[in-house]
Amino acid sequence: MEVQTKQDSFLYEQVASELAELIRMGTFRAGERIPSVRQMSRQRKISITTVLQAYMILENQGLIETKPQSGYYVRSTPSSPLPEPELSTPRQDPTLVSVRDLVMMVLKDSLNPDLIQLGAAIPNTQLVIPTRLYRIMASLARQVKHEFNMYEIPPGNEALRIQIAQRLVGIGCNVTQADIEITSGCLEAFTLSLRAVCNPGDTVAIESPMYFGVLQILESLQLKALEIPTHPREGISLSALRFAIEHNSIQACLVLSNFNNPLGSCIPDDNKQQLVKLLADHDIPLIEGDVCGELYFTGARPGVCKAYDHKGLVLLCSSFSKDLVPGYRVGWVVPGRFKSTIEWLKYTTNVATATLPQLAIARFLESGGYEHHLRSIRRLYAGFMSQLSQAVMRYFPEGTRVTRPNGGIVLWVQMPDYVDSLKLYKQALQAGITLAPGYIFSASEQYCNFIRLNAAWWSYETDRAMRRLGELVAEQKK
Amino acid sequence: MEVQTKQDSFLYEQVASELAELIRMGTFRAGERIPSVRQMSRQRKISITTVLQAYMILENQGLIETKPQSGYYVRSTPSSPLPEPELSTPRQDPTLVSVRDLVMMVLKDSLNPDLIQLGAAIPNTQLVIPTRLYRIMASLARQVKHEFNMYEIPPGNEALRIQIAQRLVGIGCNVTQADIEITSGCLEAFTLSLRAVCNPGDTVAIESPMYFGVLQILESLQLKALEIPTHPREGISLSALRFAIEHNSIQACLVLSNFNNPLGSCIPDDNKQQLVKLLADHDIPLIEGDVCGELYFTGARPGVCKAYDHKGLVLLCSSFSKDLVPGYRVGWVVPGRFKSTIEWLKYTTNVATATLPQLAIARFLESGGYEHHLRSIRRLYAGFMSQLSQAVMRYFPEGTRVTRPNGGIVLWVQMPDYVDSLKLYKQALQAGITLAPGYIFSASEQYCNFIRLNAAWWSYETDRAMRRLGELVAEQKK
Repeated sequence: MEVQTKQDSFLYEQVASELAELIRMGTFRAGERIPSVRQMSRQRKISITTVLQAYMILENQGLIETKPQSGYYVRSTPSSPLPEPELSTPRQDPTLVSVRDLVMMVLKDSLNPDLIQLGAAIPNTQLVIPTRLYRIMASLARQVKHEFNMYEIPPGNEALRIQIAQRLVGIGCNVTQADIEITSGCLEAFTLSLRAVCNPGDTVAIESPMYFGVLQILESLQLKALEIPTHPREGISLSALRFAIEHNSIQACLVLSNFNNPLGSCIPDDNKQQLVKLLADHDIPLIEGDVCGELYFTGARPGVCKAYDHKGLVLLCSSFSKDLVPGYRVGWVVPGRFKSTIEWLKYTTNVATATLPQLAIARFLESGGYEHHLRSIRRLYAGFMSQLSQAVMRYFPEGTRVTRPNGGIVLWVQMPDYVDSLKLYKQALQAGITLAPGYIFSASEQYCNFIRLNAAWWSYETDRAMRRLGELVAEQKK
Repeated sequence: MEVQTKQDSFLYEQVASELAELIRMGTFRAGERIPSVRQMSRQRKISITTVLQAYMILENQGLIETKPQSGYYVRSTPSSPLPEPELSTPRQDPTLVSVRDLVMMVLKDSLNPDLIQLGAAIPNTQLVIPTRLYRIMASLARQVKHEFNMYEIPPGNEALRIQIAQRLVGIGCNVTQADIEITSGCLEAFTLSLRAVCNPGDTVAIESPMYFGVLQILESLQLKALEIPTHPREGISLSALRFAIEHNSIQACLVLSNFNNPLGSCIPDDNKQQLVKLLADHDIPLIEGDVCGELYFTGARPGVCKAYDHKGLVLLCSSFSKDLVPGYRVGWVVPGRFKSTIEWLKYTTNVATATLPQLAIARFLESGGYEHHLRSIRRLYAGFMSQLSQAVMRYFPEGTRVTRPNGGIVLWVQMPDYVDSLKLYKQALQAGITLAPGYIFSASEQYCNFIRLNAAWWSYETDRAMRRLGELVAEQKK
């Protein structure tokens, strides 16, 4: 009975996803009319409402537009979309990281309300608001209950761990609440995991480019980064990783399996399985980031490497910061065989994660509000990502390449070779725009002509900012 | 004008504190009548109400009692109070710590509602409740404001840092909000500080006994503990520290200056000044814990080492966990010259501390509610500590020694040599009581016949538990 309801409510998303694919494949081209609502309803034997919902998603994603009294048409985009960046080819030696000051500057930019925010990967907390969560939090905060204001000793709140376990079982993981450790966000989960499996001086194989936060953790723990070539859609190159393992002493591997930040890549399930096997064969722990796993635009929720983990070597890290609320600082790690070490390290880091945010999120998940929220936020980001990609196509000079993420909130832009992203970062700041320069996504001065853009706060103003950015990029040619 | 009000409201505390001292000195002895309320009011030219308030404090502290139609009398206590433990004499070599499992057990005991809680140093969140704080939190949580739910990027919420800076200026520190870094509790402040000033393998001089959390941090960071003899009332021995510095390579020193956990010692202000100078002369950073600084029972708020810091070498660490609410996980560090490193390490640890708890505490402090709360909680703990001490005197066998803390929430009990505190811990658990065995307060198997008791949850049941504990201790003689 419950399955039935779930299928119904997801039907329109499935229809939207199929149509989006047809548009991407060129079955319906720019300017062409797609089947009318009535036709579609008849063909597919689904209700008018379902079709309307599906078309609304496609409209939000900027893929189709309505013409009054005429129907739905595929929107015009530049005749040939920009190419994607190629497989990354980072330097092959382990490198010590050092871009600390630049990272802290990009972070602090995010506090400046006068800047157009394309820099830090901050989710939108203003357009899709989990009002029910906020109400639950308020109601808990007011109550004079011992356990609401006491330390939530590791492994953390049980009701929350149960909810997380249920979701993980749903994507094929064989885990219970006892396998989960609550952390203060995903970055803390990464730090604890790296501390659990590595010692200072060790080498960690990572996808490249890589979220600067991870690189900063490596530097702070005196770990070396070994950057592995990474495909813009399929993530880490397994052959390159195999080669690296054969030629280096590697103590851990870290990937952002679903919608890598900044690439937007999503490791296909087959590759996930092979990745887990390759590392398990060499007894190398895999730290897996899944913070954007719920933020897919089409199709189904991508799987996780953890689902293929038979040796307890995968440490799955995630949080509610990107898809629900960043300020609550609630994340988790499923650390496999490293559970007791992680629990102890969590205690020595800060005793426990704040109690009320854990309780509030647990109740919100129990209430079913999370699924509803996710559906809205996915639609929003899919639309914004499409708008942002189109702005790059419109305003950036020839020779620009751009990723085509199917989830997450960031876009990775490769500009012509003559562009220096640090210079661009500074010029953009002058123009009231903040972005993330490519430098900070590598331990070895790669990606000097790349930038990462945050799609989550798209608005009319962003479009103007993108035009200005395009001009600044073009000016660097002189 | 404001000073006037403040003086008035503190007058009764001053009177109580002076009388308590007279009782301790033996000027008024057990069973003797103290001046009547009327006499006292006339003598000191203060209102009847003020005297009554002062006497109420003394009653709560268990120092005096009322006899109907007769007056106030000094309470009878065992004719000679138990002696204090002597200056600790820990082993003199740097030692690697390892009592991990025992610590995690003691922590988990604190979640068991069926146990009488004398173990973990958990403050009382049920008898003095900061209702206003909870209401502020609820009101903030309900609001749909971007900044309430966004990352509070390091150094953390400015309004809160302003409030903390104002309080620190009040105890002689030359700091502004720009000098403060918000952390997730004091333990995180310690971890960040140790990571900022030490490398794996380094040696840290610490007071001994020392709060087990600090010892666990040292172990997790692969740092060595050099345990310095510590006086049960005056804290770290300066001559012993001087000797240690001359004979070892020491990279940092860590003290709990105000009400050391478990000793309850409070370093006198002169010693604080000398301590800062001694370490500064050798360019050794001092990490200072002040988490119980506001929980003094008599006299004025003790000062901090940081007030004597001219070289930026003192890292003052504290939190609101012991005196306000543990579950919010809000602490801070004033890291002197290590500010930028601490800020970066905070980011790489967990990006930021949860936002709403910071905002709520800031507003609560702005409202003036904190001072009122502190006065109540100090009275409560002073009374409970007195009750707990008396229970030790009543129920524990001859040869027992006990500290006489003038603040904080823990009591340190030295039992006769034949007692093994680990055996006692296990027997007590069977009897439904949890306590903290002495072992975990040292890196070198000191304090095997010591236990730490938490006074914060005193009740009729605790008295019964203490009697049972006393029996278990006595039984070990056989």
